[in-house]
Amino acid sequence: MIDSLAAAYRTLYGWLIADRDDVLVVSHVRPDGDALGAQTAMHRIIQKLGRRSAMVNADHPPKRFDYLPGYAEIHTVEALMSRGPYRRAVFVDCADRARIGDVEALLSSDARIANIDHHATNDRYGEINVVRAEASSTCEIVYDFVRAVGVAMDEALATALYTGLLTDTGGFRYQNTSPKVLHDAAELVECGAEPYSIAEQALETMSLPQLRLLARVLGDIQLYAGGRVALIEVTAEALREAGAELDDTEGLVHYARNIEGVEVAVLLREQDEGIKASFRSRRRVDVAALAQKFGGGGHVRAAGATLAPPMAEARARVLEVLRATLSNPEEGKR
Amino acid sequence: MIDSLAAAYRTLYGWLIADRDDVLVVSHVRPDGDALGAQTAMHRIIQKLGRRSAMVNADHPPKRFDYLPGYAEIHTVEALMSRGPYRRAVFVDCADRARIGDVEALLSSDARIANIDHHATNDRYGEINVVRAEASSTCEIVYDFVRAVGVAMDEALATALYTGLLTDTGGFRYQNTSPKVLHDAAELVECGAEPYSIAEQALETMSLPQLRLLARVLGDIQLYAGGRVALIEVTAEALREAGAELDDTEGLVHYARNIEGVEVAVLLREQDEGIKASFRSRRRVDVAALAQKFGGGGHVRAAGATLAPPMAEARARVLEVLRATLSNPEEGKR
Repeated sequence: MIDSLAAAYRTLYGWLIADRDDVLVVSHVRPDGDALGAQTAMHRIIQKLGRRSAMVNADHPPKRFDYLPGYAEIHTVEALMSRGPYRRAVFVDCADRARIGDVEALLSSDARIANIDHHATNDRYGEINVVRAEASSTCEIVYDFVRAVGVAMDEALATALYTGLLTDTGGFRYQNTSPKVLHDAAELVECGAEPYSIAEQALETMSLPQLRLLARVLGDIQLYAGGRVALIEVTAEALREAGAELDDTEGLVHYARNIEGVEVAVLLREQDEGIKASFRSRRRVDVAALAQKFGGGGHVRAAGATLAPPMAEARARVLEVLRATLSNPEEGKR
Repeated sequence: MIDSLAAAYRTLYGWLIADRDDVLVVSHVRPDGDALGAQTAMHRIIQKLGRRSAMVNADHPPKRFDYLPGYAEIHTVEALMSRGPYRRAVFVDCADRARIGDVEALLSSDARIANIDHHATNDRYGEINVVRAEASSTCEIVYDFVRAVGVAMDEALATALYTGLLTDTGGFRYQNTSPKVLHDAAELVECGAEPYSIAEQALETMSLPQLRLLARVLGDIQLYAGGRVALIEVTAEALREAGAELDDTEGLVHYARNIEGVEVAVLLREQDEGIKASFRSRRRVDVAALAQKFGGGGHVRAAGATLAPPMAEARARVLEVLRATLSNPEEGKR
């Protein structure tokens, strides 16, 4: 660990124990596994340091994370209204202050903030900023903090932290799966985290509406450009008929990308603000450049844009650009 | 490492280098990621020890493993007929001698065998037996051998070994995901294995027939017993229409088991020998006991049996037993 990092952890430790007033621990709107893992871990750590904290999010945590320690104590904004305003808050996994959504209403105007995050775009909005863009997850940073300042590990803390490592690396499958992530995961299993049950609950469980939606879109999947492009469409009607929500479309694009021979996968979703397009590529095509042609952006292998409705026209425009990209051996390669 | 294990590795090492005749390296019929990872790793190790070997399997290795080092040198039995019979062979991931299938034809009647495997049922058919039932995978054993006798690691070897750890733990999600497996995986990434591309190729890639089959069976999935039982049927017709093969039904039962609220998942497959039933349970029901009622067997959470056709009758019988099991709070619990 580099010295400045060790210093940052000591500063955070000092900040947490300096004051006896309640600390609000908050993660982002529509919280995911890393947000909830880091949140429940920080809450537990603060208790272990002999201080008091309360957890809150703008949105309900998904039920599949109900095994997390303290899951039932993650409050809604309404539930804490009578206890606020809070003068101190720990933000986890939030790239900017607005990511907490309506939780802002619980903070005093002069609230002091500790910002723990791994997003490269984090704008360092806190009094304390522990921001490491090279970390796989916010949970990886929190685990480093735990080791740096010597918080006593237990099974509950290990379970929370493992959840963030697991989910933010896509089950140790994304490019952020470093040797350190795997060593950290091994240590957390040694401390009592159960890889089998955590993966089953956090990654594998599907609601019946999600399953119905998956069955429907997989049945309608379309291949173009000699099988190099796979396209999935989710209409508002399909969503309604499956009883599914917009969040349930997460991950669908991977099914398209994972088809043998497919180089580019496209997911088109009918939303109020237009046709949301998600692009994924396997090896060759720069989908960030593709997304830019529609006013969007992103990374080389994962990008997105919003197109004007209707669906059929959005599809036609995307396919036109994609066919040109794929037929020109140089364009869009990266 | 316990001493007897260290001795076993030294014995294997001595056996490999003692003789200069070609060693046949063979894995089992319908080879999976662990079989092929261990096979290509052992082949590479033997080369590094200055000896000669050839790889062969009864069945073609699946195309998704074509990134494995030496994949193109995994021969068919026919291709090696003129070079046999072989007097020495290393069997990897084979619980008994018959698991190599038609490769037996390449062995001399007095062939000497080294048996490297992690199946509890292994009957120690070799002259040398390195059998460790507590290991997650045969690749984990081969990696321990590499470290014990000091074979030089390289990226290709790391890639082969990582493949077995990854696939035999279901992507680090099964109950055999020990801290050691994760530490080993971390070391292999340090040696050059790429978690992202290996997972993408070994675990995530689906053929179009597999996808079509998945879409069809998910669309027809049936829930019983108040949503606690999920049942998937794969008829011969469904398989034919999707252009899929029996191997493509692997993993389908997990989709059923992963539905929120489901305790028992059943996959019924129409095969020549009858209706093959696969049972999976999440937490409570002993499916080994369930399978035994139909003359089958297995583990508490994963078991199977073969029922008499037709499909509708097999389904009715399974559901009858399952309803009785689930309505009796004691029976079948474990």
